[in-house]
Amino acid sequence: MSLRAGIVGHRGYSGAELLRLLTAHPHITPVLMEHREDVAAPVVVRRQTLPETIAATPEAAREAHLDAVLLATPPEVSLALAPPFLAAGLRVIDLSGAFRLRTPSAYERWYGSSHPEPELLAEAAYGLPEFYRETIPGARLVANPGCYPTAANLALRPLLQAGCIDRAAGIVCDAKSGVSGAGRKPSLKTSFSQVTENFSAYSLLEHRHVPEVLLHSNLEAAEFSFTAHLLPLHRGILETIYFRAHGIGSAAALLDIYEQHYAREPFVRLYENGQPDLRGVAHTNFCDIGVTLDAVTGRAVVVVAIDNLVKGAAGQAVQNLNLLLGRPETEGLL
Amino acid sequence: MSLRAGIVGHRGYSGAELLRLLTAHPHITPVLMEHREDVAAPVVVRRQTLPETIAATPEAAREAHLDAVLLATPPEVSLALAPPFLAAGLRVIDLSGAFRLRTPSAYERWYGSSHPEPELLAEAAYGLPEFYRETIPGARLVANPGCYPTAANLALRPLLQAGCIDRAAGIVCDAKSGVSGAGRKPSLKTSFSQVTENFSAYSLLEHRHVPEVLLHSNLEAAEFSFTAHLLPLHRGILETIYFRAHGIGSAAALLDIYEQHYAREPFVRLYENGQPDLRGVAHTNFCDIGVTLDAVTGRAVVVVAIDNLVKGAAGQAVQNLNLLLGRPETEGLL
Amino acid sequence: MSLRAGIVGHRGYSGAELLRLLTAHPHITPVLMEHREDVAAPVVVRRQTLPETIAATPEAAREAHLDAVLLATPPEVSLALAPPFLAAGLRVIDLSGAFRLRTPSAYERWYGSSHPEPELLAEAAYGLPEFYRETIPGARLVANPGCYPTAANLALRPLLQAGCIDRAAGIVCDAKSGVSGAGRKPSLKTSFSQVTENFSAYSLLEHRHVPEVLLHSNLEAAEFSFTAHLLPLHRGILETIYFRAHGIGSAAALLDIYEQHYAREPFVRLYENGQPDLRGVAHTNFCDIGVTLDAVTGRAVVVVAIDNLVKGAAGQAVQNLNLLLGRPETEGLL
Amino acid sequence: MSLRAGIVGHRGYSGAELLRLLTAHPHITPVLMEHREDVAAPVVVRRQTLPETIAATPEAAREAHLDAVLLATPPEVSLALAPPFLAAGLRVIDLSGAFRLRTPSAYERWYGSSHPEPELLAEAAYGLPEFYRETIPGARLVANPGCYPTAANLALRPLLQAGCIDRAAGIVCDAKSGVSGAGRKPSLKTSFSQVTENFSAYSLLEHRHVPEVLLHSNLEAAEFSFTAHLLPLHRGILETIYFRAHGIGSAAALLDIYEQHYAREPFVRLYENGQPDLRGVAHTNFCDIGVTLDAVTGRAVVVVAIDNLVKGAAGQAVQNLNLLLGRPETEGLL
Repeated sequence: MSLRAGIVGHRGYSGAELLRLLTAHPHITPVLMEHREDVAAPVVVRRQTLPETIAATPEAAREAHLDAVLLATPPEVSLALAPPFLAAGLRVIDLSGAFRLRTPSAYERWYGSSHPEPELLAEAAYGLPEFYRETIPGARLVANPGCYPTAANLALRPLLQAGCIDRAAGIVCDAKSGVSGAGRKPSLKTSFSQVTENFSAYSLLEHRHVPEVLLHSNLEAAEFSFTAHLLPLHRGILETIYFRAHGIGSAAALLDIYEQHYAREPFVRLYENGQPDLRGVAHTNFCDIGVTLDAVTGRAVVVVAIDNLVKGAAGQAVQNLNLLLGRPETEGLL
Repeated sequence: MSLRAGIVGHRGYSGAELLRLLTAHPHITPVLMEHREDVAAPVVVRRQTLPETIAATPEAAREAHLDAVLLATPPEVSLALAPPFLAAGLRVIDLSGAFRLRTPSAYERWYGSSHPEPELLAEAAYGLPEFYRETIPGARLVANPGCYPTAANLALRPLLQAGCIDRAAGIVCDAKSGVSGAGRKPSLKTSFSQVTENFSAYSLLEHRHVPEVLLHSNLEAAEFSFTAHLLPLHRGILETIYFRAHGIGSAAALLDIYEQHYAREPFVRLYENGQPDLRGVAHTNFCDIGVTLDAVTGRAVVVVAIDNLVKGAAGQAVQNLNLLLGRPETEGLL
Repeated sequence: MSLRAGIVGHRGYSGAELLRLLTAHPHITPVLMEHREDVAAPVVVRRQTLPETIAATPEAAREAHLDAVLLATPPEVSLALAPPFLAAGLRVIDLSGAFRLRTPSAYERWYGSSHPEPELLAEAAYGLPEFYRETIPGARLVANPGCYPTAANLALRPLLQAGCIDRAAGIVCDAKSGVSGAGRKPSLKTSFSQVTENFSAYSLLEHRHVPEVLLHSNLEAAEFSFTAHLLPLHRGILETIYFRAHGIGSAAALLDIYEQHYAREPFVRLYENGQPDLRGVAHTNFCDIGVTLDAVTGRAVVVVAIDNLVKGAAGQAVQNLNLLLGRPETEGLL
Repeated sequence: MSLRAGIVGHRGYSGAELLRLLTAHPHITPVLMEHREDVAAPVVVRRQTLPETIAATPEAAREAHLDAVLLATPPEVSLALAPPFLAAGLRVIDLSGAFRLRTPSAYERWYGSSHPEPELLAEAAYGLPEFYRETIPGARLVANPGCYPTAANLALRPLLQAGCIDRAAGIVCDAKSGVSGAGRKPSLKTSFSQVTENFSAYSLLEHRHVPEVLLHSNLEAAEFSFTAHLLPLHRGILETIYFRAHGIGSAAALLDIYEQHYAREPFVRLYENGQPDLRGVAHTNFCDIGVTLDAVTGRAVVVVAIDNLVKGAAGQAVQNLNLLLGRPETEGLL
């Protein structure tokens, strides 16, 4: 029998991507969970099949025999919905920032309000399978990583563990994201006329995704400079990471360190020449990595690209869902 | 009587921008200079006034009483055209890279061929008025700066001269440019379908504009990491520059250093809060600068934005032309 | 002494364009008129000159010695502001639809509420100078035309007056507009992620701009089919107009009819070959027209292009302002 | 055992889409067929699986046990390749215009050269399954329809067959296409800087796709006015079709005619309210149709949207391939 996963927030970009991915998944069926009444009368299209829809409540979830619930909702909504679903015995994957940090004080520092569920915060597994594949299958609650940290951690942690980055000189991560990263809610900043033919920096040295990188790559704040930018395109994140290499004589040697970590990873691709771009990862769950090294001075650049809605959100959530439900990790994602 | 300036290369993006700016200039009249026969039959539009057109030769220039010639041509064309125009007594502003570097060996290293005019290379004034205003009016040949170095030098040199950058930790300049920077010649890389909804890095640590920054900001190669990126938009350059500040306690103090250098500069604008973006400089000759500092760790970010076709090319060329011809520097540019 | 014009609504796209045009106008100085308190703290940029700002009241307008007021506001705001300004002796150009139609019933039919100022509605001059140049200078209140009707009327009226369109067969006007036509207020429909890589039709056969075309080109509703579309770009309107030609043997003959009407019009350009596009009119007050005719069957196509923010809004308003204030009609617009 | 289909022209946009679709197809495996040596050194990416590649010859096709060959090549290449593949007993689906028209004279009129294979021209099945599902399975050679005619014929033929269009008044089809329709070969017209923030008409009343509409909807040239436009986006075609309805009292009645024709068609979706847009069909094989009728005057508008690379090219080719090879028609396409 098919497994069944509820999606709360399917009108947002991440939720819509979850629906798209699970619709194509051979063994997991999506069920939409309506959190609020939709006011707009729907467009009716003949020969368009709509998925099953239920209320976003534990009772409805039980009646519909859901195996897990995916929350593609803002942190404050996830904080309200996750506890009752968990209490009812459902497993939850949350795509917001509600359960990503480890301590209530860190949450309060970056999200601006006190955390109402410190025990769940401590309990939640961090859903980056490439690093934490063992802990995810047994978790009740999975915090799906932020889009920027997914790319940054996949690019940085192998090199830091190998000791080939001069931390004292500092690491720069210059990150650029498509507009979908800001969500679907209309705002002047994400209106077409403000974004087209424009480009800008935001959250300079102060993005709430930074602590996820420090935590999982084991970095100090003073060692890591991060700035986000808004690209005039819909989907994709590309990060250009600069550092001084330590005891590394060639780009090929840098690549070898990645190869040692990721040789069996289905979703990490390494560029032997050329560089990743956003087109190459769009609509895929891949994380593409390219390296450059100036052997004389040790200056190094790593370029890492993901689709922020797939590997940076819904695709990674399906990867986690597969792990939770005992399916092959790549199912529905290749 | 009006002054007259010839434009070679008016079909390219920089040349077309020169034509647009000089058409609106109150005291300098543009004259188009045809370098090659245009094969396409022109579109004929009634009530569209076309500028005077002559051949791109010293003889035609003399007959047309030109006061100066602007070369918006590739380096190899500029290398062929500049000497005869100069020999005929015309003053030349070259928008290509042909005369920007100081030594033939540097030119050969970055442009891939030996320089046929080493004396002109040594003679050419570097047309960045904010730094070299005194030398430009008396020059025969002005090398208009590259687009990336214009932004980078305006952002870096004041801080480096003030000694407030920790050079040993290295400076990172992450640069993003619109597609017009690649010129008008069709190529797969600049085709619409390759660029739209895409973003990529190029010339990692190896861009030919780097030596212009090292030269005019007095930096060593090991101190400066530069990567260029292609934005899915037509015009604009934004550079995000990272460094460790030295003896500086606040963003306001960084801004004060800029203010001391640029207090009387009409084309440099400083952001007291917020950050520059490409929309703010599009179609203008402004260079906009914003600063961020983490006072605890000394990590600093400077964001600098220009329109690559204006302050990064044609606008700066008009600024230089005004200086050459004794006009107020801002004429036709505000 | 310089003339002075107030602008209400300078944060909207049309109002910002008015500010841009009048800032460059040699004889008219813009004065911003604040209608509501701006809640956001402004970005402060050094060396950025801001225009004089006053309240949007008749008293402030008199104290500031304004010669005219431009309303770049929604219809309901214009309906509230125009009467007091007029009562105080100020001349008003309104860029909204508040005073464009001739009868209260037509207004109610298309704008959905009863018109509170039927006498002003009857009095207002329709500000399409190419047709009504004589009546504008003496008007107290000018209704600046809609963007779609400006293009459609300039394309259709000369041909209809010449009797060379088979009205019985019907005229189709397929109109496409950039996103700025929808205004600056954020909405899901105009958010970047909804618009980019998308295209859609709206207001099929039912756009509120249609009655302006029927009125000024003297057409019956049954003779004119109009559909609007949303282009993924910021500015520009292109209309493709189809009809059956009557007694016309060639495209050149069609062009001659335009030439007879527009020979002395500075802002109408006719394509003898090729076709207008949006790039050719962007940031200009031009209306570009191209024609195609299949002589065998009489099927004809006219392509007309304007910048919706210039000839379709702010540029045409400046044209009207010049007429109102006794300045040359093209001043500040070429 | 899996079926195998060769793809010639996989570097073009349609060919790349064929590869994408067949890679996901559960029963047909793609094999790349190299027509010319690729000069550029390929980018090497680890963990990227590349499909099997053979030469584009009948011998290689036989050795590789291909069941069919798909030609995503220009007409002149298809004219050269189709005959030898057919002679070797392979079935061929051609995505170019080489075999779409019925007579050599029509081909010469629209494609500008004489047709070297008039017998194949007469023999080729026209691959629009919604109309010709019976003839395709038995064909040796299938001419995959043009992108514009696919949308136009699906929208027009049911209404024309039902006699509810007033042909004498004429039908207008205003068509807009994304840039991928022009192919991947670089040109100034499809360069990013020419296309972004631009929009233009082309092939006014003279597009080579028109005869495909006349042929399959049984129209006279005098009855059908078609103009193509270039949208600043990558993929998608939207056509806005205007006509006078005949004996039809409501939009619902128009929709019913479509419903009668398409009730069992998996790839045609009808909008009961609202209108199709390009986002709704992107990356799908659907053809979406919406209708509007002014019951008083009989003026009607049909909006039809497809993805030009899927239902307008590669998706329809896979639909035809499924029919040729005895697979369910929707396999790999839903």
